[in-house]
Amino acid sequence: MNDLLLRACRREVVERPPVWMMRQAGRYLPEYRKLRERADFLTMVGTPDLAVQVTLQPVDILGVDAAIIFSDILVVPQAMGMRLSVDEGAGPRFHQPLRTEAEFARLRPLVPEESLGYVLEAIRLARRELEGRVPLIGFAGAPWTLASYMIEGGASRSFAVAKRFLAEEPERAHALLGRLAKAVGAFLVTQVAAGAQVVQLFDSWAGALAPEDFRAFSLPYLAETVRIAKSAGAPVIAFAPGAGWALEEIARVTGADVLGVDWQTEAAEANRRAAPFPVALQGNLDPCWLYAPPPIIQQRTIAMLQAFSGRGHIANLGHGILPDVPVAHARMFVETVKTWRT
Amino acid sequence: MNDLLLRACRREVVERPPVWMMRQAGRYLPEYRKLRERADFLTMVGTPDLAVQVTLQPVDILGVDAAIIFSDILVVPQAMGMRLSVDEGAGPRFHQPLRTEAEFARLRPLVPEESLGYVLEAIRLARRELEGRVPLIGFAGAPWTLASYMIEGGASRSFAVAKRFLAEEPERAHALLGRLAKAVGAFLVTQVAAGAQVVQLFDSWAGALAPEDFRAFSLPYLAETVRIAKSAGAPVIAFAPGAGWALEEIARVTGADVLGVDWQTEAAEANRRAAPFPVALQGNLDPCWLYAPPPIIQQRTIAMLQAFSGRGHIANLGHGILPDVPVAHARMFVETVKTWRT
Repeated sequence: MNDLLLRACRREVVERPPVWMMRQAGRYLPEYRKLRERADFLTMVGTPDLAVQVTLQPVDILGVDAAIIFSDILVVPQAMGMRLSVDEGAGPRFHQPLRTEAEFARLRPLVPEESLGYVLEAIRLARRELEGRVPLIGFAGAPWTLASYMIEGGASRSFAVAKRFLAEEPERAHALLGRLAKAVGAFLVTQVAAGAQVVQLFDSWAGALAPEDFRAFSLPYLAETVRIAKSAGAPVIAFAPGAGWALEEIARVTGADVLGVDWQTEAAEANRRAAPFPVALQGNLDPCWLYAPPPIIQQRTIAMLQAFSGRGHIANLGHGILPDVPVAHARMFVETVKTWRT
Repeated sequence: MNDLLLRACRREVVERPPVWMMRQAGRYLPEYRKLRERADFLTMVGTPDLAVQVTLQPVDILGVDAAIIFSDILVVPQAMGMRLSVDEGAGPRFHQPLRTEAEFARLRPLVPEESLGYVLEAIRLARRELEGRVPLIGFAGAPWTLASYMIEGGASRSFAVAKRFLAEEPERAHALLGRLAKAVGAFLVTQVAAGAQVVQLFDSWAGALAPEDFRAFSLPYLAETVRIAKSAGAPVIAFAPGAGWALEEIARVTGADVLGVDWQTEAAEANRRAAPFPVALQGNLDPCWLYAPPPIIQQRTIAMLQAFSGRGHIANLGHGILPDVPVAHARMFVETVKTWRT
């Protein structure tokens, strides 16, 4: 039983850092693309059998030290009644973004065991199939990130529609964010009950907010979600890409066990800044460097490991792996971590 | 003659900070949209008469303290032989992005007086029509930003194609960046000779690079461009949005007179961090806050002015003004600065 991830989350002494990759069950794997020929993205997410097959692929193929359940952060707004499409080219899209009072009023309360039962079932199945080989990670989107998608309607460079909403209607924004914190927190608790051994919160659009807005509209709700999730007893990873400046505040305010570090933040700097806090760090190779020739990948990965050494560290990319990265390059990243000794 | 901008660039004592807005000659102005009905974006950029009309609009309508010549950073690659389209919805696009050796070899040397004569003519005309009311700013794109567009072919969220090029072919990347630094530097020198009283370098995609890559592929070429531009004698503003973490390094390495501060960076923090360096700061209200009700805009603008006070400061947004901001809101921003006294 490989429990490196669990021990690293608790900042225990480990032989070497555990390694996994965000979006490791993804299009760069031919085995993933083959399954995707038969089912679209949301069908795969919604069918526990398929989701589990994909979840296990990187464990079998690359030998990563953790599996992360194959799902999507937008299943929560979907379960609250919003109609979602995902086109892997154009990204996710809600057919009727939240704008009017009536649209807000139509949002359903979240009962994870009912509307997200398929995710919990996939977690149970994946745990069984993993047979203890590596720990299983559950995840969810953080309140600000979900709210920004729900209001904007889809991905956006500036999230100007969602931010306009914050500027024009701060009270309704806070009400939505508070509601999402409770829903997402409860969802993570049920994921742990179903078998997730670690959970990660993705505040993917944290970087769309200026510092004072991050403090007003993201951080308190991230903290509330972490607080609820922690009550389930599993370690919680908080990842707020684009808000590397806030590492100390996230550590202090959320009480997360592990902080994700994005690739925009210098590893040694993150390590130094996080030193006063009881947190492990996860990250942070720039996914674009997996395009480099393998010897360069090895070099950069070792430099990253060295920069994080001396503390709990989970080796990862600083963002999701890109769909056109050669598998051999991903393998070089994983192997470099697995053969590294401080 | 309102020379507040020139005095602020030199960090002289001023009655109040000068104010202008990035993209102030833009679609949020009905007068701009009216001209755009008759001519597409690149025609307006390429026709000195039209460019000058648009350049003067925000001076007449909003009373800003500076005009910035209406143009585009991509005129430089275009003048080097790359075919460019600009669709205001989808953004700019090069028909044949740089990929093969042959495409690189076809790039023409830049002779600004010839291929960019229309920009210089617009600058001369604008100076004449301004009659000294406010100073005129010239500008250009920084080498990394131009290179990333030239290789990627257009705007992109991750610039993965351009970054893949850096990872796979660093030597050809450095050769291109070096060539662009000389070309852009020379272009800025001719802009000053034509009448630009301040010049700004936009490294708009600085934030697409991890810190070590910013130091390798952006900063040295930004510095070289600033060095050449400064030889013309006018103040140089360097703006590298998304690289707020590098403020000190940009100040130290480039020797720019003014550093632009993006909206992601906290104003008080930027002020504190820049304190040891002989630079003025420009920025940095989040453009999305111009959606807020005018009293909130006033509040936020005053807080921003206070955070920057005690040093050379040019009030601005932390990014370009958005096309759907009400003119009255932009005016509130400008008026708040103009009536503010420390």
